[in-house]
Parts: sequence; structure tokens; C-alpha cells
Amino acid sequence: MTQSTPAAPVPNRRDRILDAALDVVSEQGAIRVTYRKIAAAAGVPLGSVTYYFDDLHQLLTEAYTRLAEAVSQRYRDLLDAARTSEEAQEAVVDIVCGEAWSSERDPLLTYELYAFAARNPELRTVMSNWLQSSREALARHFDPLTARALDALVEGFALHNYFDASPTSRADIAAIVRTVAERHKHPEPHP
Amino acid sequence: MTQSTPAAPVPNRRDRILDAALDVVSEQGAIRVTYRKIAAAAGVPLGSVTYYFDDLHQLLTEAYTRLAEAVSQRYRDLLDAARTSEEAQEAVVDIVCGEAWSSERDPLLTYELYAFAARNPELRTVMSNWLQSSREALARHFDPLTARALDALVEGFALHNYFDASPTSRADIAAIVRTVAERHKHPEPHP
Repeated sequence: MTQSTPAAPVPNRRDRILDAALDVVSEQGAIRVTYRKIAAAAGVPLGSVTYYFDDLHQLLTEAYTRLAEAVSQRYRDLLDAARTSEEAQEAVVDIVCGEAWSSERDPLLTYELYAFAARNPELRTVMSNWLQSSREALARHFDPLTARALDALVEGFALHNYFDASPTSRADIAAIVRTVAERHKHPEPHP
Repeated sequence: MTQSTPAAPVPNRRDRILDAALDVVSEQGAIRVTYRKIAAAAGVPLGSVTYYFDDLHQLLTEAYTRLAEAVSQRYRDLLDAARTSEEAQEAVVDIVCGEAWSSERDPLLTYELYAFAARNPELRTVMSNWLQSSREALARHFDPLTARALDALVEGFALHNYFDASPTSRADIAAIVRTVAERHKHPEPHP
């Protein structure tokens, strides 16, 4: 057995750069992102960033796509783990209340993503696929319109609670989620 | 009566600059905003922008504050005009479906505002006041938790429909708004 081994592969610089870009956006906002800061955060030479990415727009598009896919995957995992409608409601409340997030980084970045995606056709497709995927995960437990409504509640309550000086409590969110999730138990009369 | 009048006041350059800043953000995204582009959009000399605003951060903070106040005022006006709970539900659906917006500019800008506000303490206060004001407008027609839930639905459905390749229809949104607005008509049993 020989001690000689091939040169250690360069760690995945491309991915490190993408992760570092999200760190810089998270810490300083999109308005202050530069190649130089991304290179410093990734611990790579500036030339490495320009080697992998033609421009900042392309780099951020890829970074946000990774973010959307990671957040979407976490959402699906939580809902896939639920075995009953009640557990699925509990998962929805967990997602709203931030227990699905590992740190404060993700909600911040999500709003940067929305702003960036609003004028970027490639990311609009990513966003639309993300919505589709969330609904499919919810639709394992609820009818299609209820799935859309619950997904809208998750978005709205999470965003409002993030900015709110007096956030809606977990118990109150659970009550509203139940009203929507169980809406067919009380069919509307047709007036 | 004399023909001599004081020199015509300079048109309100400060406000023109703030409006122009929102136009530039709307067209190009926060990532591409510069003093130079704002001055060009406002039709004022560059020196005028630097005269009124110490830095771009201060300028954008003021511009977004004006935006939040204008959007908030429109929301309140629509709900104040409703005379019954049914009319208030209709107003909520109108807001979700974008009939409260005059153009595509505002939803785009709202996402830029969220991203900017997330790391700006001054704007977090503006956001929190905006939430408070929306709920008060809803609470003229609904109980406080229902008001919070409807406000979350407005946010979530408007955002999702903006990005969605197959948006939720007006009729479906109206059905969900009714479920939440009339939740007390079907008190939950306590299991």
C-alpha cells in the first residue's frame, strides 16, 4: 500500500461561493453585495469568483435557486412526516412559528429572494415550482383549495410575525389553521 | 394690483427625488440603484440629490416609508368604505386580487421594501405600524384574531398569486375569506 495519493481535490469552490453569496446578502442586503465581499466570505481569491460566474446577476440567480430548493425541501419533509390531518396542521403551525428554520438567516433571505425574483424570469419559474411543490405536499393531507389557503396563511403569518411588534400567538395561529383545514366540516349554505 | 410676484417656488425637489428613487428601484431593483440614476429619473442635477440626502440608505428609508404609508392608506380607505361585513369581505378580496393597485409597480416595490426593512430598524417600526393600521381597519368589521387572519391571507394570496403560474381564482379566494370571516358561525366543539 502506497502513501502516494492523488492531490486532494479542490473543495467545491463553486458551492462555497454560492453559500458565501447568501451569507453576504443576509448580513448586508442585496444593495451592498460585491464580488469582493463574496470572495472574502468564501475564503477564495477574487479570480475564483469571476472564473465561475460571468456576472453578479448570474451568481445571485444560482444562489437564490439553491435557497428556494432547500427551503422547499424542508417544507415538504415536515409535511411528509405527518401521518394524519391533525399532524399536518401541527406541521403548518410549526412552519409559521419558525420552528422549521434553523436561524434568523432564512426569513431575511426569503424577502431578498422575492425582491430579486420579481424581476428575474428564471427565478419566477423557480418560485412557481416552489409554490407547486408546497401545495402538492399539503394536498397529501387536504383538498387542493384548502392546500392553497394554508400555504397563503403560512406565508402571511410568517411574514407578519417577522415584522410585528406584537406577533400572533401560536395558539391563535393554530385556531385559524384549524378553521381553514376543517372548513368542509361546516358546509356553507347556498343563500 | 401689481404684476410683480415672488419668484416661483422651486417645485418640491425632495419629494420628486423620493418618487424617482422608487421608480428606479421598481425598474431596475435595489441592487442597481445609484444617486446618478435617481437624479436622472427625477430630472434634477446630481448635486440636488446629494444636497437633500446624506446617503443612499437614508434616501431609500424615506422613500420606502412614503410607499408604506401610501399603500397602508389605500388599504384603510377600501375597508372604511365598507358598510357591512359582506362588503368588508369583498374589499379584502379586491385587495388580494390587485384591484387596489394602480399598476404592477407596487407589488414589486413591496417585496423590495420587505427585504430592505428586514435589516433596517427604522423601517421595522414603519412595518409594525403598518400591520397595526391594517388590523385596526379590519377590526371595524371583524374580531381582532379574524382581522389578523384576514390580513395574513391578503399577504399570502397576493404574494403567491404574483408569482404563481396558475393563480388562485377570485371565487376561490372569496370562499376562503368567507370561511375565515364567518368562523364564529360554526363554533368548534371542544374535543
